[in-house]
Amino acid sequence: MKYAEIKFWEQTGLEIIRQVEDVIKPLIGTIKSGKIVKIGADGTPTTLIDVVAEKEVLNALKELEKPLFLISEEIGEVKIGKGPPEAILVVDPLDGTSNAIKKIPAYGISLAVAPCSTKTHKNPNLQEITMGLVKNFATGDIYSGFKGKGAFLNGEKIGPSLVDEISHSSVGAYIYRGDMNRLEPLCKTVRRMRTLGAVAIEISYVADGTYDAFVDMRDNLRVVDVAAAKIIVEESGGIITDRHSHPLHAPLDVLEKTSLIASGNEKLHKNIMDILGGI
Amino acid sequence: MKYAEIKFWEQTGLEIIRQVEDVIKPLIGTIKSGKIVKIGADGTPTTLIDVVAEKEVLNALKELEKPLFLISEEIGEVKIGKGPPEAILVVDPLDGTSNAIKKIPAYGISLAVAPCSTKTHKNPNLQEITMGLVKNFATGDIYSGFKGKGAFLNGEKIGPSLVDEISHSSVGAYIYRGDMNRLEPLCKTVRRMRTLGAVAIEISYVADGTYDAFVDMRDNLRVVDVAAAKIIVEESGGIITDRHSHPLHAPLDVLEKTSLIASGNEKLHKNIMDILGGI
Repeated sequence: MKYAEIKFWEQTGLEIIRQVEDVIKPLIGTIKSGKIVKIGADGTPTTLIDVVAEKEVLNALKELEKPLFLISEEIGEVKIGKGPPEAILVVDPLDGTSNAIKKIPAYGISLAVAPCSTKTHKNPNLQEITMGLVKNFATGDIYSGFKGKGAFLNGEKIGPSLVDEISHSSVGAYIYRGDMNRLEPLCKTVRRMRTLGAVAIEISYVADGTYDAFVDMRDNLRVVDVAAAKIIVEESGGIITDRHSHPLHAPLDVLEKTSLIASGNEKLHKNIMDILGGI
Repeated sequence: MKYAEIKFWEQTGLEIIRQVEDVIKPLIGTIKSGKIVKIGADGTPTTLIDVVAEKEVLNALKELEKPLFLISEEIGEVKIGKGPPEAILVVDPLDGTSNAIKKIPAYGISLAVAPCSTKTHKNPNLQEITMGLVKNFATGDIYSGFKGKGAFLNGEKIGPSLVDEISHSSVGAYIYRGDMNRLEPLCKTVRRMRTLGAVAIEISYVADGTYDAFVDMRDNLRVVDVAAAKIIVEESGGIITDRHSHPLHAPLDVLEKTSLIASGNEKLHKNIMDILGGI
């Protein structure tokens, strides 16, 4: 993507985010926000607040008058506008739904953009993302990453942690309903472990050293939910792979799932892979 | 304590909280806030932001011109003012220190008050607390509990969750560096697990059903840090015990540690005790 195009999508993304925030704000912390209203394209139950957020993404994109593909958790894949699509938007309209319902202050939005060449538009993958935005609505913080241009928090350039020993590290980790035998050595060694319940925000935390690393070994993270955070971490200088130490290049499809290990630096990444038994 | 006295301590507590918030605000998310400046009365390293917070508690109490005891994490126990002490204040000036340093939005203050009879003032215990205040500085939310008068969030009366099945429950849990064998059945069964890193705030979450339960089996929670949250949960109608299902009545001493299981209702509490093997 050219600079002007990336700038266009950054501004558009920020405007979509603003619109989604406006419509969900009155629902935060309410009982009705958590009412299950349907089953999403990914097969999981969808709450009212998820539907409201996604509908607003659609509304905002229709107003754009640009042909594009939208890939989103609840709706699946949808073409918007007439003519050949100019871009692919990959959106999790509400990261941390259950936090939003309970007003635990970690919930937001994840929005990523990939170019749309006629060759690849049907099967784009995670590596083709050129821009990612992740906002925590509870704090107002916006993480962003632009291919080849770096990563930013509220417009300021950021870099990841230099901590390379697990015993000194603060790690965001999803271990419940995981394989405890494999995870025990990590649990025993880390300095601190956090589980906030909003993965796009928590993966982005690796980009500015809020977390030294993020670990989810359960092969259950939706690829579309981590698309934006992945480029944010990579552009910050951090490392991000699946649990086999392979690059993340899964197709951008709502049914695709992955494990994910993100670290501030290569040495910590290797130490985490080693302690988890190189699985 | 009489009603007028409790009201006095509520107002005084809120004023202390306001003053502490003012002095620590400029330090949130800064590198210098995390500089280790001394070893606290409890034997753990104390950061600059901890010291600044505790100093402000002391300043505020000295301005009061009331004789009292202050029990606090870093300073230990200290008598303030002349004459027989009129109350015991139990304060964790900064709950969630490492979150405050990293700007993870769960950090605040815990402040509890116990009456000071000449008989018991040297060895008061957790059950003598008559009032507790817990504020999350990142969100502005204030939980409060008053003996016999109920629990409140921002002045509105609150009650705990009715969820009684572990498989439906959202549980705040501290499991890293714990005994994984004992914790595995819980980890495998819960619907959601959260670890925000601010225990007074997270225990208070049980009082309004934000969490269905909170579990820390590691016998490593400082009694003075949970003093306020305990009365908040109890006054909301929730259940709070140690991991042996015993009431919490440890002495209010900075060196005293405990395990803690708080649940929204008795059935969930029993289910959690059962799944953890009745240890």
